Amino acid sequence: MLYEINEKAIKLQNQGKKITKLNIGDPDLATPSEIVDAACVALKKGRTKYASAFGEQALREKLGSIHGVSADNIVITPGSKWGIFSTMYLTLKQGGNVVIPTPYWTAYGLAALSLCAEARLLKTDLDSNWKVDLEALEELIDDKTRLIILNNPSNPTSKVMDEKIVDGIVKIAHDKNIMILSDEVYSKISFVNTKSILNYNNDNILVTGFSKMFTMTGWRIGYVVANENLITKIGKLNQITFSNVPVFIQDAALVALDMQDKLTNEIREIYLNRAKMASKILSDAKLEFSNPDAPFYVFPKYKGLDSEKFALDLLDAGVAVAPGTSFGDYREHFRISLTAPENDLRDALLKICKAVSE
Amino acid sequence: MLYEINEKAIKLQNQGKKITKLNIGDPDLATPSEIVDAACVALKKGRTKYASAFGEQALREKLGSIHGVSADNIVITPGSKWGIFSTMYLTLKQGGNVVIPTPYWTAYGLAALSLCAEARLLKTDLDSNWKVDLEALEELIDDKTRLIILNNPSNPTSKVMDEKIVDGIVKIAHDKNIMILSDEVYSKISFVNTKSILNYNNDNILVTGFSKMFTMTGWRIGYVVANENLITKIGKLNQITFSNVPVFIQDAALVALDMQDKLTNEIREIYLNRAKMASKILSDAKLEFSNPDAPFYVFPKYKGLDSEKFALDLLDAGVAVAPGTSFGDYREHFRISLTAPENDLRDALLKICKAVSE
Repeated sequence: MLYEINEKAIKLQNQGKKITKLNIGDPDLATPSEIVDAACVALKKGRTKYASAFGEQALREKLGSIHGVSADNIVITPGSKWGIFSTMYLTLKQGGNVVIPTPYWTAYGLAALSLCAEARLLKTDLDSNWKVDLEALEELIDDKTRLIILNNPSNPTSKVMDEKIVDGIVKIAHDKNIMILSDEVYSKISFVNTKSILNYNNDNILVTGFSKMFTMTGWRIGYVVANENLITKIGKLNQITFSNVPVFIQDAALVALDMQDKLTNEIREIYLNRAKMASKILSDAKLEFSNPDAPFYVFPKYKGLDSEKFALDLLDAGVAVAPGTSFGDYREHFRISLTAPENDLRDALLKICKAVSE
Repeated sequence: MLYEINEKAIKLQNQGKKITKLNIGDPDLATPSEIVDAACVALKKGRTKYASAFGEQALREKLGSIHGVSADNIVITPGSKWGIFSTMYLTLKQGGNVVIPTPYWTAYGLAALSLCAEARLLKTDLDSNWKVDLEALEELIDDKTRLIILNNPSNPTSKVMDEKIVDGIVKIAHDKNIMILSDEVYSKISFVNTKSILNYNNDNILVTGFSKMFTMTGWRIGYVVANENLITKIGKLNQITFSNVPVFIQDAALVALDMQDKLTNEIREIYLNRAKMASKILSDAKLEFSNPDAPFYVFPKYKGLDSEKFALDLLDAGVAVAPGTSFGDYREHFRISLTAPENDLRDALLKICKAVSE
């Protein structure tokens, strides 16, 4: 229902209605001008031709050096989404199941559904601070399990996983010879340290992107770090599906990487302040939630709430949020993206609190 | 092998070698500056956010008016390739077969293979001027056939299908309740009139793009025209795979459409001249081929040639072409893209003729 709400919000906006869009993780901040300028320079230099389906060598090498791997372990994708979908497609298209802790990002479940693969969901809840139960995880795995998907920090909870829990999951996956796909798209801007899946010496997959770190959502560029075999397969799939990420976008991403520390510090500070403001307003309204460890989300719960009806009604009041049912079995929850300027965000949060208690 | 040769050509270029790349359909011409400028304006206006997975409404409406359909019958894709792959994915992922006349564009076959779907190939040959045998087509179709793919004008032959043959294929497909996917990416710049699949009142699918018409290959933008049901399915698949084509690219495409007549006339004239030059040089060297009806390709035959070995050896001589085996059972053929400046093209054609006769 997340996507239906988004398409409806876009329609209302096209009709001239003001909608504060807290339903998707698209920052109100603009892409930094240095990155925009780099794209224009590349465009004017004629960087508009077909190119390698694996990505530009300079960008792959730079990312390889950042992650301590070879350029051959990197493939550039149109957003981290394609990194996830392509990995799921390649590992699950001939059957099997994927194990995913919930609440989870909508696209994982929809991709599994589209691929006719079984998604085995492991529910975590607010009361236990979203902790993954390792025994329960192990029980979900069988000989048809092809993948475990982690999202660390999490969308929608903005929770960073406890390192010991990640250690435990990696051990289970290793013992059972299953790869972990770790979606870490929020990790570089998280408020607390997030241990990457690449810090383990196992054969796992990192998926991430430029969208959140550099406010480049609509540019559609991300990448996968994995063993050469999987990278080759994804590159070959790229060749027959979309060819390559536009080179002028890759050139802009390379410039973005040079500004990484400065930009991520700025983004982190802005979202930390917004998270504090949201926590205060939502607490005052007796909503339950875990404090965000990272941008961009809060995932509050209100006992007895039907979040689908709530989200649709709220849209008519000019605020878009995502119902909890988009993230698993969480009807009493909803997700707020803190992706609006402070004043709009405050007004929208107050509207949300008012609507919840009505 | 087409993609392997391309990746090898890119590697040789990265090593500083001069390669005249006649192996892929990527014009040497630059994207017109008006289109580049439009993208830069959009980038600087902040058109860098997530957007509708179906495409920008203004672009869909403009394309709808061009094709005489509603905007709801249009979805914007990252290149025509994604239009083809997504349609094949949605119709074939649960089994079935697809019927495709050959020689065919590499990506159709590789997509079928990736989807574990059976591709039923209908061979046509140079001796019959690439004519599709309607009886043979009908025999290939059974109750598991989900799709017929046509490519008109054809890659690799640059042949425009005889209208009566298209009439016949449409009738067969209609009688058997099978959709035709017609890839018409070269039609607006073809040297002769090409009847579009949309001129038939059947439930068929048009796939095309901006790459060839506007020299926008590396921008990755195309679209599908089809019934609302399929368009909705493709839009939903877009949401979980790459989100949307960057809006600044869609804005540039909208500007391109305003220049369509001027640009397509220019491109047509340039390629008609190149086709004449190539025909002369290749005829003189006793190569057999059909005269191109459209950009960008010639698909000559040389009796006894092993085109895979030939293409690899030729790469070392600084010219990249595509072996005929990439397009079906055509070992004695190879494909030349006329996508280099006249002088380079002439030199490369002479090198090709020399190599062939050695």
